[in-house]
Amino acid sequence: MRDSSGRTPIWKAIADALRSDLAEGRYSPGDKLPTEATLADRFGVNRHTVRHGIAALVDDGLVRTRRGAGAFVAATPTDYPIGNRVRFHENLIAAGRRPEKRVLTLDERAATEGEAKALQIAAGAPLCAYHGLSLADGQPIAIFESLFPLDRIAGITDALRNTSSVTEALRVAGIADYTRASTRLTAVRATATQALHLHVSEGDPLLRSSGVNTGQLGQPVEYGRTWFVGDRVTLTLDT
Amino acid sequence: MRDSSGRTPIWKAIADALRSDLAEGRYSPGDKLPTEATLADRFGVNRHTVRHGIAALVDDGLVRTRRGAGAFVAATPTDYPIGNRVRFHENLIAAGRRPEKRVLTLDERAATEGEAKALQIAAGAPLCAYHGLSLADGQPIAIFESLFPLDRIAGITDALRNTSSVTEALRVAGIADYTRASTRLTAVRATATQALHLHVSEGDPLLRSSGVNTGQLGQPVEYGRTWFVGDRVTLTLDT
Repeated sequence: MRDSSGRTPIWKAIADALRSDLAEGRYSPGDKLPTEATLADRFGVNRHTVRHGIAALVDDGLVRTRRGAGAFVAATPTDYPIGNRVRFHENLIAAGRRPEKRVLTLDERAATEGEAKALQIAAGAPLCAYHGLSLADGQPIAIFESLFPLDRIAGITDALRNTSSVTEALRVAGIADYTRASTRLTAVRATATQALHLHVSEGDPLLRSSGVNTGQLGQPVEYGRTWFVGDRVTLTLDT
Repeated sequence: MRDSSGRTPIWKAIADALRSDLAEGRYSPGDKLPTEATLADRFGVNRHTVRHGIAALVDDGLVRTRRGAGAFVAATPTDYPIGNRVRFHENLIAAGRRPEKRVLTLDERAATEGEAKALQIAAGAPLCAYHGLSLADGQPIAIFESLFPLDRIAGITDALRNTSSVTEALRVAGIADYTRASTRLTAVRATATQALHLHVSEGDPLLRSSGVNTGQLGQPVEYGRTWFVGDRVTLTLDT
């Protein structure tokens, strides 16, 4: 997305600024964007450049233009509440979007040192690793990896073969309820593989959330990491 | 940070992966990193490439090498708790780091439509705009913009001329206490100006937090946005 000089083209910076306005909830679907003349004035560029920036948002499905009437907000990035219970399916349904999960890989392997530490198990102990893609209305919004300690939850791999829902699979495997102990959030660059799955460019900003879910006795039952596409998801935290 | 083909060089991907391990709290300061041979094996590259990746972390001040002994973790990215009270100064002191704020601009201007909406004031109503840089141990970790409605807090601009602390300035201007109503988080690309102030590259991932603080009567007293450097800060949320 950068030109040969390594700088962001101006039309791209304008698209980013408008995308940012949408992500902050400044507009609702159906709202009219400021006119080309107003935006040209705000960014100190000509109308042609503004039009190029808006075209990028149209490509993203965020904005629709109507000849003679201007540009209108088609969709806003998904708001995604975080709290002590993170429920992908329910969150998206509540936002009026159609959730979907796609399994990329599901296998059993030994825990690395870092994974073992997070799950409070011995390094090398067996894990179930569930790697997949979350979509909203058919558009990828996040890629995730969930790790489950097999010594604590023996049946989880089989359960995940029958359902893409982690909540449901944990229930089948004997964990009736779980809560999120803590969440860590930062911003990272999309790797080449993540970019491919998420339909973004390598290096694009992803919001990474990582956290451990614990069962009713406080034992770690899942170590999960999710990489959300920055342009498509805003995490919200009500206090 | 990308080569002419637009792809991330392998040494850079290795540095990112290790930085990511540090950000997830997998290592503590003083811990030894895996050997070059182990890392070369993990990433499927030669030792020269691993060394190049580690050198990038040394440049960042995250890792120190000792001839013959290997690479050791010098510092881990700052953990930054988020909750209903966000206190920059106290958070960093608690993490054993030296906090500092630098004012970039402090002025009064009219609210744009989006800003007015967030603060529940009329578009065009007067604002105090406080734009600055947050540093930890002299390293920039975030850039922020705080907006205050002047019709509600007349004395805030003068108060901010005397203290860089928002909490203290609000107290002086008559707001004894405030709470964070909600927080919105996403990942964005650093603009050219942000990159310059934060000592990162344009397009690098920033974690953007935005939210409104309200006074004791529920009235919005501050609309704040902060852009944290993804590689230097992890927000933590305890539930």
